[in-house]
Amino acid sequence: MSAPKKVVLAYSGGLDTSIILKWLQSEYGCEVVTFTADLGQGEELEPARQKAELLGIKPENIFIEDVREEFVRDFVFPMFRANAVYEGLYLLGTSIARPLISKRLVEIAAETGADAVAHGATGKGNDQVRFELAAYALNPDIKVIAPWREWDLTSRTKLIDFAEKNQIPIAKDKRGEAPFSVDANLLHTSSEGKVLEDPAKAAPDYVYQRTVHPEDAPNEAEFVEIGFEQGDAVSINSEAMSPATILTKLNELGGKHGIGRLDLVEGRFVGMKSRGIYETPGGTILLEAHRGIESITMDRGAMHLKDQLMPQYAELIYNGFWYSPERTMLQAAIDASQDHVTGTVRVKLYKGSARTVGRWSDHSLYSEAHVTFEEDAGAYDQTDAAGFIQLNALRLKLLAARDRRLNG
Amino acid sequence: MSAPKKVVLAYSGGLDTSIILKWLQSEYGCEVVTFTADLGQGEELEPARQKAELLGIKPENIFIEDVREEFVRDFVFPMFRANAVYEGLYLLGTSIARPLISKRLVEIAAETGADAVAHGATGKGNDQVRFELAAYALNPDIKVIAPWREWDLTSRTKLIDFAEKNQIPIAKDKRGEAPFSVDANLLHTSSEGKVLEDPAKAAPDYVYQRTVHPEDAPNEAEFVEIGFEQGDAVSINSEAMSPATILTKLNELGGKHGIGRLDLVEGRFVGMKSRGIYETPGGTILLEAHRGIESITMDRGAMHLKDQLMPQYAELIYNGFWYSPERTMLQAAIDASQDHVTGTVRVKLYKGSARTVGRWSDHSLYSEAHVTFEEDAGAYDQTDAAGFIQLNALRLKLLAARDRRLNG
Amino acid sequence: MSAPKKVVLAYSGGLDTSIILKWLQSEYGCEVVTFTADLGQGEELEPARQKAELLGIKPENIFIEDVREEFVRDFVFPMFRANAVYEGLYLLGTSIARPLISKRLVEIAAETGADAVAHGATGKGNDQVRFELAAYALNPDIKVIAPWREWDLTSRTKLIDFAEKNQIPIAKDKRGEAPFSVDANLLHTSSEGKVLEDPAKAAPDYVYQRTVHPEDAPNEAEFVEIGFEQGDAVSINSEAMSPATILTKLNELGGKHGIGRLDLVEGRFVGMKSRGIYETPGGTILLEAHRGIESITMDRGAMHLKDQLMPQYAELIYNGFWYSPERTMLQAAIDASQDHVTGTVRVKLYKGSARTVGRWSDHSLYSEAHVTFEEDAGAYDQTDAAGFIQLNALRLKLLAARDRRLNG
Amino acid sequence: MSAPKKVVLAYSGGLDTSIILKWLQSEYGCEVVTFTADLGQGEELEPARQKAELLGIKPENIFIEDVREEFVRDFVFPMFRANAVYEGLYLLGTSIARPLISKRLVEIAAETGADAVAHGATGKGNDQVRFELAAYALNPDIKVIAPWREWDLTSRTKLIDFAEKNQIPIAKDKRGEAPFSVDANLLHTSSEGKVLEDPAKAAPDYVYQRTVHPEDAPNEAEFVEIGFEQGDAVSINSEAMSPATILTKLNELGGKHGIGRLDLVEGRFVGMKSRGIYETPGGTILLEAHRGIESITMDRGAMHLKDQLMPQYAELIYNGFWYSPERTMLQAAIDASQDHVTGTVRVKLYKGSARTVGRWSDHSLYSEAHVTFEEDAGAYDQTDAAGFIQLNALRLKLLAARDRRLNG
Repeated sequence: MSAPKKVVLAYSGGLDTSIILKWLQSEYGCEVVTFTADLGQGEELEPARQKAELLGIKPENIFIEDVREEFVRDFVFPMFRANAVYEGLYLLGTSIARPLISKRLVEIAAETGADAVAHGATGKGNDQVRFELAAYALNPDIKVIAPWREWDLTSRTKLIDFAEKNQIPIAKDKRGEAPFSVDANLLHTSSEGKVLEDPAKAAPDYVYQRTVHPEDAPNEAEFVEIGFEQGDAVSINSEAMSPATILTKLNELGGKHGIGRLDLVEGRFVGMKSRGIYETPGGTILLEAHRGIESITMDRGAMHLKDQLMPQYAELIYNGFWYSPERTMLQAAIDASQDHVTGTVRVKLYKGSARTVGRWSDHSLYSEAHVTFEEDAGAYDQTDAAGFIQLNALRLKLLAARDRRLNG
Repeated sequence: MSAPKKVVLAYSGGLDTSIILKWLQSEYGCEVVTFTADLGQGEELEPARQKAELLGIKPENIFIEDVREEFVRDFVFPMFRANAVYEGLYLLGTSIARPLISKRLVEIAAETGADAVAHGATGKGNDQVRFELAAYALNPDIKVIAPWREWDLTSRTKLIDFAEKNQIPIAKDKRGEAPFSVDANLLHTSSEGKVLEDPAKAAPDYVYQRTVHPEDAPNEAEFVEIGFEQGDAVSINSEAMSPATILTKLNELGGKHGIGRLDLVEGRFVGMKSRGIYETPGGTILLEAHRGIESITMDRGAMHLKDQLMPQYAELIYNGFWYSPERTMLQAAIDASQDHVTGTVRVKLYKGSARTVGRWSDHSLYSEAHVTFEEDAGAYDQTDAAGFIQLNALRLKLLAARDRRLNG
Repeated sequence: MSAPKKVVLAYSGGLDTSIILKWLQSEYGCEVVTFTADLGQGEELEPARQKAELLGIKPENIFIEDVREEFVRDFVFPMFRANAVYEGLYLLGTSIARPLISKRLVEIAAETGADAVAHGATGKGNDQVRFELAAYALNPDIKVIAPWREWDLTSRTKLIDFAEKNQIPIAKDKRGEAPFSVDANLLHTSSEGKVLEDPAKAAPDYVYQRTVHPEDAPNEAEFVEIGFEQGDAVSINSEAMSPATILTKLNELGGKHGIGRLDLVEGRFVGMKSRGIYETPGGTILLEAHRGIESITMDRGAMHLKDQLMPQYAELIYNGFWYSPERTMLQAAIDASQDHVTGTVRVKLYKGSARTVGRWSDHSLYSEAHVTFEEDAGAYDQTDAAGFIQLNALRLKLLAARDRRLNG
Repeated sequence: MSAPKKVVLAYSGGLDTSIILKWLQSEYGCEVVTFTADLGQGEELEPARQKAELLGIKPENIFIEDVREEFVRDFVFPMFRANAVYEGLYLLGTSIARPLISKRLVEIAAETGADAVAHGATGKGNDQVRFELAAYALNPDIKVIAPWREWDLTSRTKLIDFAEKNQIPIAKDKRGEAPFSVDANLLHTSSEGKVLEDPAKAAPDYVYQRTVHPEDAPNEAEFVEIGFEQGDAVSINSEAMSPATILTKLNELGGKHGIGRLDLVEGRFVGMKSRGIYETPGGTILLEAHRGIESITMDRGAMHLKDQLMPQYAELIYNGFWYSPERTMLQAAIDASQDHVTGTVRVKLYKGSARTVGRWSDHSLYSEAHVTFEEDAGAYDQTDAAGFIQLNALRLKLLAARDRRLNG
């Protein structure tokens, strides 16, 4: 790979990506463009602009954008149509944000004539894979620079030294090692590393940042009604809202009731297992509600196929293959199942749990006439069941008859 | 089907199966053998013996058995190795009990020279299918009698009339219609019908029988440590216990903390949707813990394959295909994944939730050396990630290059 | 089910459906509408009109249609996009025609005010299921009459008697039993029953009707070039043709070279196994060519997912679930994979075989630059493979290290 | 990676691996152990011994073994139980041999105290991955040396120079570039590269080495009867034979009749597509016969599950994951389906095709009594089909009723 001439950097404004910014300039002598996105991580973006300017980035090379609506509408919601969970439990909060960032990096590279993009993910994690696969899928000729895999700033001391030599301001609390590492966006906060590295030990309380402890949640349950149209949430308690507004509101509710905490050991795509603490308050409520509305509006055949496809779909997103033909194929199948996933679900929030307690829809397939214990006025003929069972049993009978024949 | 001469009836001792007992005698003039199993439903069995005798069943034709250990060891535990849930949520508590009952019915038929078995499941539900598929798979020549599909006792009044005419004792509270219908065993209690038939309305509090309301659960969390060997739970808080004892103990814990309630609309195999209220206190804790121990002891490749196979496996059990070659095949694959699923999981129980907070094992695949944010002493070479990403990206680049070539 | 008033009958003009026609009139006293479709079975349709008139059907109640283009375009081609084969070998020639017939039956019922449809499939086969599931999926209130399951004309003698009593003309060769039963359309001819019922015995030569014996095929191979656009065949030897024309032409070529014979024992949806002889000359060439064009234009990830989904897709079609949400979902996934399946395949036809010998496309993903044994000018960096392998191996190493640790 | 001290080399005795042998000695100053296996590639092994000696390998460091029986019994046959084909067509002849070679390399390393193994696969192909994943899965600490990824002998000229400088004898026909590259074992011969690199052009006739041109095959068909026990072939024409003998014999038959040729473009695990010419004469017959015996002895449910699992199983073998937990799981499922796959299949061999024409077995599930067009003496009650269809249709009717309700 020839040296990059102009690089678009995913820039948070924090110490690490500021060091990367300077390192790119000094290592490659290249022009740097910064991209800072509001994905709902809960931080002000303007300080990032000031810091970039301070580090010598030209104003026209500083890109700061609020992508929250795009994030929820085009990434989070399509994923939730699938009820996607990785390894049975993880709601993919970090995984789903990476393709959007890469997409904007590549687009800004095209706009600014940059030949490379750079990110601050380490060489041990999944995020490097997600950033880079997405970037290459969108521009096969782009260069991707991953400083953590390249440089020799392999200790905290070296990083601080480099920062000091390069006039990068260092907040007091950043001089030492953080006790764990955090990633956040509108869907979730993840924490990992350091004090969390022993999976036998419970995560310390101070790790949790976005949800109250269930013990501290209100003693009264709260009920919320979520409206869906074609698989996507469109309203809360009958009030129509935009995608990002809905997720924000559900995050408030979930956070208040201590909902969506997960302590997980997971298998990374790069081969080792890692332990993470995830907080996905709104997403946890949304998943419960989405399943609730599907339960009355989606056909059994469709639902079972969807359930079967889900683990692969979740794995693709986890591994960074959002922009792959197979994810697109699975999305097409999933989306084709959502036409009638329209209606309302009532969810009870209480001390760490979100549980569906009611659901209704004009699109409901639930037929009280068929299922009732009462007289059903001919909706269902019970004698049909005899033939149904006989023919389902036929192959089992033939198997049993063979066993009997062969064994005596 | 020619008329049965001797029938083994799955007999609970309750009014409905007592009516069936008499109806079989009067309709077919056949000898009746009763089989009453203790599956952990929480009822005394001796009254069933007395009632059977009262209804004229010969002592040698009355079979009363405690099958709890067999139930948990040979049915519940193998199923939990798969982390089986139906339609994302249901722990299959009723489904998994049926094959065992059918197995004993068929075995007792062989012992007593009976040519038929009979059950009390209705023509609208899944249980008829489960009973009958299992029976036919074990004895292709057995006759199965399903009185609810055959007789004309189609109203409560007719049933009570029949009972009175036949000297069947009727408990006072059985004269009217029950407000809902219940099935119970050591794994779960399910309630459905009548007051539960409108899925928009929350289930009344009195429906729940086995778990306290989360609001009434202790205000202090309780922690439990579950030990596993090769995928099965073997101890609680370091005390070794038999399978049924473990599930009984977990039920107590779960019930006390309001754990394992589920309000679900599900797709029945016979084609309509139904709404059920399930309480699976111990099973819910067990599933959480099993996932917890798998998370550190099971390889990612094995786990992802297992996740992929699970929905079909769950569907097979739900639909009644326990004794089918394809369930056997899937079980072989699942069991082959459990050799090292050995270790201990610590679970927090609090107000309706069971959450893993720690897990440890001699069989752990988690390697702090590999995952650490600290120096890893060469366990992992970060530059490997570059090649890993490049080759995973290659096909995506070729796709992107094609798009570029064709479009521009 | 109340008695039907007006029935649309799938009418071939042959003896059996003529008997059904009369039986419907006499059994139900209902008006009969006939629908006769040209699906490419190779028979004149006008005799069916004359016969229907002779049997008293009003001219406005006789529907005769050429549906060959619709059949290939909307049913055969979508299915071939999936490379669908049932149980590894069967190209689903009969299965795929049934939904189209049911669709027209239901549509004609709506046009003519009929309340029922009828078909001539027996109670042992798959076709009854396919006809009826499709009909109910398109009109939930339609009645479906399956005379073979209802009447008492259970022997050839009784059928002939009924025909004679009802002035139904009987061709001389129809008086006796046919030595086997045949179904045909543009995609295939299937033969089964009678002389074919022993799966140990080779099918007699006279069973084959559409393909020459490979031994009698030309001694010279013939080459054909098939052009594809987005997954569908659009030309033969550079000549653009309509879907039905292409299949017709490929049938001629395949028939001449003895291609597409299959002697199969298959598992029917109704539970037993049956033996069929299938001839699918054009379809066999088409499948080979479609795979050929996919091999250079479809990404590996997409192809492997498609291969994985195919067996379920084929099973759905075989079992009669064309009009089901899950088939629609799978079709959406499959269709989403075909955007670039455009190009040309050269196939060698010789003595019973069709083999791809060349393929080319502007949409090709094959990159000689990458794969070459020669210098590749930097297209591919072989050292990337080392990292790729290391990270793919990591979890396997961790497993092996565990085994070593535990075992000594 | 520290420098290896003693390396076990997969040594063919040919020029390339002889160069590797010398290069290992000169590059690392390490001791070399050679392993030469008879996998049925059709070459004498003794010349490899002489050449190794000539190149200075100590006699005790030369391992020459006939592993044909192990290869077929423990690798080929288990794979054929799955009917494994990669991307619809490839019988995995090269893929399945690699794990065995790696297994012996690792075992010999343990015996001889070597710390590394080496292979002659290039950095662009799948074989490097297969060799190395298998080696690491069997010994997590082994070093693997892949000279083609490391050295600078990047042209034919440099290789010949190196050989000459190191007194490696060079056969005359090896001085120039081979027109294509070959791999062979008892299961197949594969050819690729150079003259085969344009997938639009038919492979030249001289590429095929193991099968006659179909045009040159006998004009008379030949019939062969293959006996199976529990999924594995055990006899040919009633004569019991060992696994390798059976495959050898089928290769002769297939080769003589021009059977098993395949011209394929496939997706490599390392990301690019490549074109290969495969000849798998015996394997092609074996696959056809195995499907034939399964068709009468295997239950539909088992078979469909197996068909569904197959593509992933084949992909795992292709990608080099033979020694992975997920392959083991799938193998357990597949093997659990083969208990009754016992019986005989008659296959017709003619001019490039192998087709089942008859099959019989004591374990057959085919029931003429059930399927017959004749009177079936009550084996099957056609009226059962009505109930079977009604309940299968119920969810489709509910869907259709919803559409009607919402749209009209």
